[in-house]
Formats: sequence, C-alpha cells, structure tokens
Amino acid sequence: MKLVTLDCVPGGQPGAVLESGEILHLARAAAPGTAETWLPPRLRDILAAGQEGLDLVRRIVERVEGLDETERHALRAQGGLLPADTRLLAPLPDPNLIVSVGQAYRSHVAEMKGNLPKEPHGFLKSPTVITGPEAEIALPPQAADLVDFEGELCVVIGRTCHNVTEAEAMRYVAGYTVTNDLSARDAVPMIGAAKTTPDARVAWDHVHMDKQYPGFAPMGPVMVTADEIADPGDLTLTTRVNGAVMQQANTSDFIFPVARVISYFSHWYTLRPGDIISTGTPGGVGYGRDPKVLLRPGDVVEVEVSRVGTLRNRFVAKPH
Amino acid sequence: MKLVTLDCVPGGQPGAVLESGEILHLARAAAPGTAETWLPPRLRDILAAGQEGLDLVRRIVERVEGLDETERHALRAQGGLLPADTRLLAPLPDPNLIVSVGQAYRSHVAEMKGNLPKEPHGFLKSPTVITGPEAEIALPPQAADLVDFEGELCVVIGRTCHNVTEAEAMRYVAGYTVTNDLSARDAVPMIGAAKTTPDARVAWDHVHMDKQYPGFAPMGPVMVTADEIADPGDLTLTTRVNGAVMQQANTSDFIFPVARVISYFSHWYTLRPGDIISTGTPGGVGYGRDPKVLLRPGDVVEVEVSRVGTLRNRFVAKPH
Repeated sequence: MKLVTLDCVPGGQPGAVLESGEILHLARAAAPGTAETWLPPRLRDILAAGQEGLDLVRRIVERVEGLDETERHALRAQGGLLPADTRLLAPLPDPNLIVSVGQAYRSHVAEMKGNLPKEPHGFLKSPTVITGPEAEIALPPQAADLVDFEGELCVVIGRTCHNVTEAEAMRYVAGYTVTNDLSARDAVPMIGAAKTTPDARVAWDHVHMDKQYPGFAPMGPVMVTADEIADPGDLTLTTRVNGAVMQQANTSDFIFPVARVISYFSHWYTLRPGDIISTGTPGGVGYGRDPKVLLRPGDVVEVEVSRVGTLRNRFVAKPH
Repeated sequence: MKLVTLDCVPGGQPGAVLESGEILHLARAAAPGTAETWLPPRLRDILAAGQEGLDLVRRIVERVEGLDETERHALRAQGGLLPADTRLLAPLPDPNLIVSVGQAYRSHVAEMKGNLPKEPHGFLKSPTVITGPEAEIALPPQAADLVDFEGELCVVIGRTCHNVTEAEAMRYVAGYTVTNDLSARDAVPMIGAAKTTPDARVAWDHVHMDKQYPGFAPMGPVMVTADEIADPGDLTLTTRVNGAVMQQANTSDFIFPVARVISYFSHWYTLRPGDIISTGTPGGVGYGRDPKVLLRPGDVVEVEVSRVGTLRNRFVAKPH
C-alpha cells in the first residue's frame, strides 16, 4: 500500500495511491457506520493504531479498487478520487524526530577515504525542514552556491520503541519513504582543516547545521507499507540531477543493516509512530566529484528508490 | 505574565499563574462574544498570534485579578480557578525545535580548562524528551549511575525568524522558562580519549545522544513573558540537589549574549513560535566535581532562575 498526505488543508489529509495512479482521499471513501469514519487526519496517528489501523485503511483501498467505472465517477465527483498529479505534502510532514545516519554505505566511506565505522552514527535533522515532493526549494542565500544532494531511503517507525534489540527492531517499522538530505558544504573544509579535537567538534556541529536550512528535507512522495518491502537491504537507490545519474547503489552496501541501525539509536531515543530514520547516502555526492556538482537555480533532482518511489524537486534562487 | 500548560487533557490547556498563586484555566474565563473564546489549546499557537494574542490573554488575567471573592468562588466552582499545586505539563510541551547551547558560561569553560569558543555552538535536543515540572524522571537502565544535572535558562521564541541580525533578534523572543538539560556522562571519557579528529567526532555524537533519554528535558513550571525580563543577561541561576547548591551563576557570565545566540542559530534554523533555545549551563555540574555528584533514585533537583521560576523533579529507579 502506498500512502500519501494530500496538501489540501493545513497539516494535510491522508490518501492512498491506487493501481490506476489516481489518488484516493481516504476519509471521503470511509464507510458510514464503521470505524473507518474515525480515520485521523495525520498519517502518524493512523500508524499509531498499529496493524488494526492499517487494516482499516487497506479495507477502504480495496473496496475502492473494486468499484466499477460508474461508481468511481461518483467518487470523483465527491472529491474522493483525485488526479495522479494532485499536490502532496511529505507523507509524514511533521514527525517528532528525524534521526539521520552518516557514513552508512561502504562506497561513500571509500570515496571519502575513511575507515569503516565500528558503530552507526548519526544526528538529528530538524523536522521543520521537511518539504513535499515536487516542492520548489530555494537555495539559501547564506550558502547559495554550496548546496549538495544526498539521496536516502527512509525508514518510517510504526510503533513506539526504546532500547530494543536488533532481533526485534523490524517489528517497529511501518514502512519506507525517500528523502534528499540536502547539505550545504561550506563546513566540509573545516573538517579537513581541524587539527585538534576541539576544532573537529566545532566543524562537526557546522556540518550538521548545514543540513538544516529551510526545505532541506524534501520527502516522499509516498510511504510504502513494510509488507511490500521484503528486504530493505536489497533496494536500488538512484539520484539524478537534470536526468544525469549521480548516485546509484544497492542498499546491500549498507555497513549496518536497518535492524541494527534502529536498535542502535533506540538505545537513546524513543522512536514513535511516524518518526523517521534516514539511512544515509551512498557514494556519488556532488561535493566529492571533480569538478564538483553543486545545485543551481533551475536544477531538478530526482531520488528514486526501487519499490518505494521517486522524489523530485526543483531548485530556485531565493526570491528577494 | 506567567503562563503555564495545564495537564488536564492530552496536549494540555493554557493557564496563567495569578498573584494569589492560584492557576487560571484561561479558556474557562474567556468572555463570551469576544475573540477570547478563540483561545487555542497550545501555548505555541497563542504565541503565534503575536502581541495581539498575548494582549487578549492579559485581558483575561487582569479581569480575573479584579474579581471579588464571591466571583472568584463562582469561577472556582466552574473549574476556572485551580489550586497552586495543580498538575502542569512543560509550558511548551511539544515545540518544533530545541536548540541547546554548549560552552555558554565562562565559569563552565574555565572549570573544563577549555578555551573560550569563538562562536556559539550547540546541538538539537529532541523535543520528545520534554517532561513537566514535578514529574518523576526514571534513571535510564542504560546509564543509571551516570546521570548529571545541567540547570539552564530557556528562551521561548514568539515569532518566526530566520537569518536575523543580533540587533533585531530580541524582537522574536516571547518569554523565558527553565530546563534541566539532563546528561548521561558515559561518553565524556571518549572526549578526552579521542586522539584523532574522526574519534573526536564519534565521541561528540555520543555526548549529544546521551542527552536524549526519555524525560531528559524537564521544563517549566512557567513561561514568563519577555516584558517581565528587562535583561536575560542579568538573571541568577541556582541548581540544588536535595537542597544543596551545586550551580550558582549570573547570566552575565554568558560568553555570548542571548541576542547573539538567537542570531547565530537563525542563520541555519528557522525558529518558530514556541521553539526553545536552551542557553547552556554554568560551572558546577556533578561530573566535574571531586567526588562526582551523579543522580540517584530519590534525589530531588531544583533549577531556579530569578524572576522566572523553580523547576523541581524527583529521580526514581526505572520500574521493572
């Protein structure tokens, strides 16, 4: 099942992508006299109802898939069936937490000439920088010539968990989506230049803040439910800039499997329904290229993850 | 004005502390036929209405302050006036963002034998670890013997800002509250042991994660509006453990003034109404003492900031 958040009211409304590509406004297709009418407006609250909640959503979707053309026409007329190009927000537009993993793929560590990390590591990305699929993203004037792409697979948490083992971690996954962990690169030279450990810490803080400019976490277009992804460690990730392939990797190149990553961060964080673990980026980022490929106004970046979807955003100069 | 969030329904309800100490349930004292009845349930949404919103709240408070005892009795009977010891949530129980400043006071840098930083630095603290005043906080089994206190003054943002100058920064402040930036100390030895810059980065990530255990950001009890604090750089902060003073400082010891800190972080982050900048801790933390003072079940920690209030929490062993 491919769930989306419709950009029709503040905060959005839950939807699902049908086999035809049309988008179902779930609340408008709920059966009167059933718990379907309780469907909450936020996907994270739907996830909080666990398997029972997802089963109710699936019942709505399957009923609509079975409608004949006359019935579909009637549903369209009520605004219950919407065109494939309907405006969407990120599927989870306001999670409590985004934990973003660094140095996740062997290929990326190799191109940076680093050593394989002994444990996962990551940082918090502010959920306030989430934006939607197809949203235009303004290059921030503070770092307009230094913005780089990082295509990433995201895990969406479905059940609250804290301090869970690797063996049980996957039970807490509701599904998957796609992000572009946009990063301004002005602090990267500080990393190389840091000769002392205090300087290294300051540089590291800068690297993380450079991922927090407005709109720097486009996400979506869909959340694919976990039942459709047998193995998140066997997906293909491709990032294209204006159609040219920049990153291409299989998630089998992950240094740590998804279950280990969830277990590791849950040692500290409490992960709740709708929270995001962004699983890091493979080799091929623009800053690591010669010549460097940094984003310019008009560029279109696509991040595609097999079986999950393609996130596309256009970059623009910040309006004055 | 001292605003609070009443712990009576999920998400809370807005209240105000009266001169008598009683707590006013604001929505229950709103005048019919006025915009007071639009009062939203979340303090951050009240702040989003700017000065006009705060003026409406003040009108309610001043009207109730002017009631005679018979009228107060009637308001009490309706649940509009509540006892001083009414259960509270953190005043901002669910901000979008907490930016937590490190190395903020000269005294703390001196006791750590560090150099004065050239710029503010800080990290994101997960808003999901906020808990209320008087809440019991479980020492996490992962680090039960290593939990330390850090008393801090918090700035509450009132208006959305991004990339603002130091000169204009204070216009965006709605008020102030108090936090205890609880920190497990198991990664501190990693900081000292790090000989290489990559090891320093890994240690630094750990130090930040060690502040993210459940309940590690108690906050409150009140948000004092900015009009009552002429200078956030001239407040006294005192932290007591079981009554014994552990930290005592004036915020005049800040290395960077509050306006500079807001301006600095706004370069990257967009700060929104209800967001928190926690301004760092002075010297005297438990880990820096000889012998170390780390929290044990039964300990009570109070963080008092003059003119703002006293945050008190009791620590308990995590129930099995």
